[in-house]
Amino acid sequence: MQKTRIERDFLGEKEIPADVYYGVQTARALENFRITGQKLHPALVKALAQVKKAAAQANHQLGYLPADVTNAIVQACDEIIAGKFADQFPVDPIQGGAGTSANMNANEVIANRAIEILGGQKGDYKIVSPNDHVNFAQSTNDAFPTALRLAVLDRTDVLIERLVGLEEELRAKAVEFDDVVKMGRTHLQDAVPIRLGQEFKAWATTVERCRRRVATSVQGLYEVNMGATAVGTGLNADPKYPPLVISFLSQITGRPLREPVDLVDATHALDGFVAVSGSLKALAVALSKIANDLRLMASGPRCGLKEINLPEMQPGSSIMPGKVNPVMAEVLNQTCFLVMGNDLTITLAAEAGQLELNVMEPVLAYALFSSLDSLANCVGLFADRCVRGITANKERCREMVENSVGLVTAINPIVGYKNAAEVAREAVRTGRPVREIVVEKGLLTEEEVDHILSPKQLTTMGIAKREKK
Amino acid sequence: MQKTRIERDFLGEKEIPADVYYGVQTARALENFRITGQKLHPALVKALAQVKKAAAQANHQLGYLPADVTNAIVQACDEIIAGKFADQFPVDPIQGGAGTSANMNANEVIANRAIEILGGQKGDYKIVSPNDHVNFAQSTNDAFPTALRLAVLDRTDVLIERLVGLEEELRAKAVEFDDVVKMGRTHLQDAVPIRLGQEFKAWATTVERCRRRVATSVQGLYEVNMGATAVGTGLNADPKYPPLVISFLSQITGRPLREPVDLVDATHALDGFVAVSGSLKALAVALSKIANDLRLMASGPRCGLKEINLPEMQPGSSIMPGKVNPVMAEVLNQTCFLVMGNDLTITLAAEAGQLELNVMEPVLAYALFSSLDSLANCVGLFADRCVRGITANKERCREMVENSVGLVTAINPIVGYKNAAEVAREAVRTGRPVREIVVEKGLLTEEEVDHILSPKQLTTMGIAKREKK
Amino acid sequence: MQKTRIERDFLGEKEIPADVYYGVQTARALENFRITGQKLHPALVKALAQVKKAAAQANHQLGYLPADVTNAIVQACDEIIAGKFADQFPVDPIQGGAGTSANMNANEVIANRAIEILGGQKGDYKIVSPNDHVNFAQSTNDAFPTALRLAVLDRTDVLIERLVGLEEELRAKAVEFDDVVKMGRTHLQDAVPIRLGQEFKAWATTVERCRRRVATSVQGLYEVNMGATAVGTGLNADPKYPPLVISFLSQITGRPLREPVDLVDATHALDGFVAVSGSLKALAVALSKIANDLRLMASGPRCGLKEINLPEMQPGSSIMPGKVNPVMAEVLNQTCFLVMGNDLTITLAAEAGQLELNVMEPVLAYALFSSLDSLANCVGLFADRCVRGITANKERCREMVENSVGLVTAINPIVGYKNAAEVAREAVRTGRPVREIVVEKGLLTEEEVDHILSPKQLTTMGIAKREKK
Amino acid sequence: MQKTRIERDFLGEKEIPADVYYGVQTARALENFRITGQKLHPALVKALAQVKKAAAQANHQLGYLPADVTNAIVQACDEIIAGKFADQFPVDPIQGGAGTSANMNANEVIANRAIEILGGQKGDYKIVSPNDHVNFAQSTNDAFPTALRLAVLDRTDVLIERLVGLEEELRAKAVEFDDVVKMGRTHLQDAVPIRLGQEFKAWATTVERCRRRVATSVQGLYEVNMGATAVGTGLNADPKYPPLVISFLSQITGRPLREPVDLVDATHALDGFVAVSGSLKALAVALSKIANDLRLMASGPRCGLKEINLPEMQPGSSIMPGKVNPVMAEVLNQTCFLVMGNDLTITLAAEAGQLELNVMEPVLAYALFSSLDSLANCVGLFADRCVRGITANKERCREMVENSVGLVTAINPIVGYKNAAEVAREAVRTGRPVREIVVEKGLLTEEEVDHILSPKQLTTMGIAKREKK
Repeated sequence: MQKTRIERDFLGEKEIPADVYYGVQTARALENFRITGQKLHPALVKALAQVKKAAAQANHQLGYLPADVTNAIVQACDEIIAGKFADQFPVDPIQGGAGTSANMNANEVIANRAIEILGGQKGDYKIVSPNDHVNFAQSTNDAFPTALRLAVLDRTDVLIERLVGLEEELRAKAVEFDDVVKMGRTHLQDAVPIRLGQEFKAWATTVERCRRRVATSVQGLYEVNMGATAVGTGLNADPKYPPLVISFLSQITGRPLREPVDLVDATHALDGFVAVSGSLKALAVALSKIANDLRLMASGPRCGLKEINLPEMQPGSSIMPGKVNPVMAEVLNQTCFLVMGNDLTITLAAEAGQLELNVMEPVLAYALFSSLDSLANCVGLFADRCVRGITANKERCREMVENSVGLVTAINPIVGYKNAAEVAREAVRTGRPVREIVVEKGLLTEEEVDHILSPKQLTTMGIAKREKK
Repeated sequence: MQKTRIERDFLGEKEIPADVYYGVQTARALENFRITGQKLHPALVKALAQVKKAAAQANHQLGYLPADVTNAIVQACDEIIAGKFADQFPVDPIQGGAGTSANMNANEVIANRAIEILGGQKGDYKIVSPNDHVNFAQSTNDAFPTALRLAVLDRTDVLIERLVGLEEELRAKAVEFDDVVKMGRTHLQDAVPIRLGQEFKAWATTVERCRRRVATSVQGLYEVNMGATAVGTGLNADPKYPPLVISFLSQITGRPLREPVDLVDATHALDGFVAVSGSLKALAVALSKIANDLRLMASGPRCGLKEINLPEMQPGSSIMPGKVNPVMAEVLNQTCFLVMGNDLTITLAAEAGQLELNVMEPVLAYALFSSLDSLANCVGLFADRCVRGITANKERCREMVENSVGLVTAINPIVGYKNAAEVAREAVRTGRPVREIVVEKGLLTEEEVDHILSPKQLTTMGIAKREKK
Repeated sequence: MQKTRIERDFLGEKEIPADVYYGVQTARALENFRITGQKLHPALVKALAQVKKAAAQANHQLGYLPADVTNAIVQACDEIIAGKFADQFPVDPIQGGAGTSANMNANEVIANRAIEILGGQKGDYKIVSPNDHVNFAQSTNDAFPTALRLAVLDRTDVLIERLVGLEEELRAKAVEFDDVVKMGRTHLQDAVPIRLGQEFKAWATTVERCRRRVATSVQGLYEVNMGATAVGTGLNADPKYPPLVISFLSQITGRPLREPVDLVDATHALDGFVAVSGSLKALAVALSKIANDLRLMASGPRCGLKEINLPEMQPGSSIMPGKVNPVMAEVLNQTCFLVMGNDLTITLAAEAGQLELNVMEPVLAYALFSSLDSLANCVGLFADRCVRGITANKERCREMVENSVGLVTAINPIVGYKNAAEVAREAVRTGRPVREIVVEKGLLTEEEVDHILSPKQLTTMGIAKREKK
Repeated sequence: MQKTRIERDFLGEKEIPADVYYGVQTARALENFRITGQKLHPALVKALAQVKKAAAQANHQLGYLPADVTNAIVQACDEIIAGKFADQFPVDPIQGGAGTSANMNANEVIANRAIEILGGQKGDYKIVSPNDHVNFAQSTNDAFPTALRLAVLDRTDVLIERLVGLEEELRAKAVEFDDVVKMGRTHLQDAVPIRLGQEFKAWATTVERCRRRVATSVQGLYEVNMGATAVGTGLNADPKYPPLVISFLSQITGRPLREPVDLVDATHALDGFVAVSGSLKALAVALSKIANDLRLMASGPRCGLKEINLPEMQPGSSIMPGKVNPVMAEVLNQTCFLVMGNDLTITLAAEAGQLELNVMEPVLAYALFSSLDSLANCVGLFADRCVRGITANKERCREMVENSVGLVTAINPIVGYKNAAEVAREAVRTGRPVREIVVEKGLLTEEEVDHILSPKQLTTMGIAKREKK
């Protein structure tokens, strides 16, 4: 028989397994919320411990918390920050109550660990109280969103690092493929030549811009509403407390956190998270397009474009011998679709705030972590297992260009649009190379054709001119 | 100087242009709501007139409306149904008030026209009153959603007709292309052969199923909440009124309308519209995929798949001579994206209902009409100007199949997976045809190859067997 | 040191932990896809085993699979169906390859277990081969979507059961609260009275309709594309196989599965899943509205509407003593937001199909399971822990009605709109009860007022009439 | 009989009404695209003319365009910029071809007007050619997105101005209501007091932040890809052209436009528009929340919160005398839902880019203009017709605070959480004021209560302390 202890709150008593660090409120939350079957995100747990540590330090300095209790709380927090007690945060990430259960889960685990440190028995909250000590001068309404901001910053750092890695792989390929002239396509129709390296460089540019946008969007999260307490008025918070706790928290996290200009706004408005998710969505749009392009360019092997080869990561078919599929690009697409769906969940949650609070923060957090984690994971794998190993089919690319009608555009400025169009039509009709027809018709000499239709010429800004003789 | 008349409501007086049929409440709405710059949808105007006509007939039969007023109202409604006074419904489709302004616009125009018919002057509401006569036993909360349901049914009919047309075009092509064997692709990688006709037939099947789903989804709209009055309790409505007005309305519209099981639910719940939009979204998903496939299959002319040719509808480039783009498929994609966005607007509006009413109906209506109209327009154009004119490049398709490695799958059951895989690898490595290698290796005779790799065999269910000799 | 065995596929060799049942392809997938950190959904694992069992039985009956191998496969499948080997399906639910990795994970575990049953060593695929035996006559492209359909049907059953439970709770409250007359509100403004029971009954009606819509939407999933093999043409499948395997699968699952009309369509079109998700979204819209209403009606205790009391499930604030929040309603809102976001992911995945296959099925499955599971979980908790315990503040409701101006609507038909409006304005101006003013003005007698403004009268369809004397 | 002229392109001849300025390509587009029934956005028409003017000036300076043709083109453009020929741009905003039809519509109107200026007849393109002169050194792929960027900047300016106006109204109310103490609510449950002015100030802060985010997001649009020509390589553009044309365009528009770092990326990537729309969505989330709060706070008149009164803009009901609804807040909600739906359309369009171009730009433009225009319109009306006229029910607010249990939070630091909770429970049980119970129990003196529970004290950061005696 499992040993238990009895805890109580103003709704009554409850039996708790004797050995767990969480308490009655966590236990209630476990019964109330079994939605996803998942647990609090580790980054959020860590961030809650950071917040609690900073609050204890500030409250101690302001004379509200005795030294021994403060030290025990700080030690408990440090242990959690270091990854201990990871199994003591079992509440479902999707929960009612704007994060009260997550906050109380942290308060309870920290209190019970601090009690142990001070030589007491778990549950003896006279020694250290989850509410009166650990949560002193806080409300879920400031502690939870502050922790959420920290955790999002934490996960964003990882994503950004992976994006930088992807950019490097793309840039390396841009250099490697700089001399691979291939057909450019607009509307999926043959257009004019482009270098494969230019395409990879453009993707690197896109990803970099999207990455910078993500980095900019999280700047807003450095404003944390500690001291707001319940509704942003700061009732029951010492006016010296906000700058102090934020200074401690900056120290603990190594981030230049700051006070918001308006604590009421900062307590109920979640547009900052919508903006972050929006930047992730813009990134997902860009990544999904890259995945689409790679799959298209690698289509084949015999009946597609086959301009490039993606590295072979796993057999692609149980029925078709030798088939290999572009699985890393496909999983990137899917991750991007997940991010776009999460963005909608985040938007809906943010819109549902009412008066002094937005109680839908937990699902917003859940969706945002899902986006950040899955993107970071996937971008890393995609860079390593797809982009890095791409090779070009240079000959195939060259043949398509030489065979193309689009070449005719380049001679446009010399022979005129009307003549060019006639060449184009004849090429399409007969299937003959543009090059041949142009010379045959006496429009250009072979030397001129060689110059104007040279790879460099075709893919560089400039207007073809007839050499004066 | 424009002539005016004075009208009043309980908020005060207002000058109205003397010659307009609408009145003070429409005039207020015109000032309050200038959001889209557009006007009430004609189908909604017609439906409102149908509702008002049915209500007048029912109220007359129940003894609440005198014959002359009834007749005048009915005539006014008939005129509007016939398309007259189209310029008298200027209120913005996106409006506050759950459609009050649209409803009052109809009430006012009908009242003033009825007044004229009875020999009075516009604005002399003692003769026919917008509220006491035209709106008798109604509330915006039953009249507007009822009209909306009718208008949606009306627009859906048009869409369905266009979808049937598209299916016919696709089926005609399925027959036409039944003998065009081409490469089937999964993951954009060469898989096994398929007939072009099978692809068109599959699209017809998809569209038909999606069309049936749309038709099913609108069944829910046949329940109209006339008689609910303000909150669904039917206060101030005669208990004999709901079946009667619905019977008249069924007659007028030719649709088997019915009373809902629960008037309170029917007055505030908009999930029925969400379901309709959801069915349009599923359709859009299917259509967009077809557009994507067509664009892919028509890619080229020299550097793409070029299995088919889309009809040339307009020059595609101002800079590239002779270029033609798949514009009809592209506009279908875009229309589908619009429909998906509208679906979100509709969802958001539907979720925002509170207590006895959902006041967000106008934007829901706006988005739903946008989806229905643009889809109907685009599907019609796409069938006529794209699908009908598609031609196949049979030779090109055949060459790709014969050149493909995927053929090897078909000989799998005879020579075994391991042998087949070896053939596949050798084919990829050397670029030689599978057919040739198989015979050379003595795995199959030429006759066997001819049989097993015949177009019919390759694209029909069955397992290749070695003929006993 | 962990013991390993060596496995190989056409991409090379790979070390596998000796004791695991999965093989080389699962191992590759584990490296390629670490996106969500989660595992295959148990319902999908079970369904894959059901598919493999049916295929083995059909293949045996058609003479393609020997009895001993068949029996071993069937036994292995039965064990998995019973819940064994749950830890042997570790591939990430979001994966490239259209489910190839999930399918191969199942093929490998079943093969290795069957090998064991036949007395062999794991990895000795000559005894039972994942591809040649377990996957015989199948492709990921038919096996995976078939399993997905079965798993979705499975999870939908659970959701539907929970919805029925919620409806029962709502209906019980409708009866319990049938005599609680309260103020009806439209636009959040006082309208006319309604009974609390009518509101609960309306919600039950809404939920029932949405539940039926979900049940209808999954009907499309009974069409399973077994026999389609790679692209829907059925290459390498015996024409007798599809009906046979579907018949076995119907037996195993107890569901009347059927062949699709068009295997090519059935292999690439995912609109059926979009429709299911769309029906969940419509349900979410309805549930979220109910949650919103309950939170509004329970607002207070002193400064809100406080018409009802929600059961107290957990303390609501660490800073405000005695505060209790509507957490079960809040978590329902959040779950609904999750479902709406998932619907977008599903839509995006479905739209991204290309040619003969939609490779984005895994993320679609992930999002759909998330919606079904979280909804089922949350609806069950909401019915038990919220709706069942709701109590009404009958006196408070009555007072608001009697104090309201909206009552005036009921006397409208007797005293006329103009008189009624004057009473309304005077009531608002002076704060006096409508009842009092009406009698004082001699518009009605006290007896008439008592009758017309009686709770029953006010909330029942009907037009007030002056009794003839 | 309408007079016509004959025009031709490489697809053949076409009859054009003799008096229109557009030509054959516009005529084809009119037939191909009848999707929305709407026309090109005036801001886009203006921006296209600005682009064409700048291109003409640059091409002239580089020696590619003669002075007379240049002057005529410039004059034609100036006339269009001034608003002339507004009826000559009839192509549907949703169109295939990535904006080719919009671009050609501009090219044709400008050419024909320039021809007239030079004394020629419409259609005599030897004088001024739409392609060879007006479109010189341009492609739709650079001209259209450049114009789109300019038009979006133009519409954003209007929106931002309206947002500043809204902020001013909110701030004025923040001052006006600074002494209105009311109940703060979290979870819709009574929390602790707040001043109405603090709420309005918080909204102003939110709107300002969202407005700044919009302004930041459009910074990316100052990079315009003129000179990219077809695919970003600049084929057929003079290397001196990009800086020159951008300098002219900056002059014409008064905006500091700049060259992008990567023309290939700038030609196909649309993430910049996704980011702009994302910022509008975040704004919409914030505005919708404000509208929700206002509607809630104004609920009543007798059976709601009724803390504030919204200005009465129109009668709210045809059946309930004297009812007025919060229509301006409701239309703001609806506009926000439209914006969120448009954001999805924009996302989908942006994701659908392929290789060197995103052909879905037209629907992206359509949705983005819809968001910008409807938001600008609605925000202006909302500021003028709603916020400006809001009045507070100070007495009602005060009564709720004094009657509330939440007051007890403020005495927490003095009497202790346990005592405070007992007071709270007794207050709820008996219905008596907290104030009274506290004094009766001897926990605080009346003077202390007066001080601690004073309006200023309750809504200002601080911890209550017992005065030393």
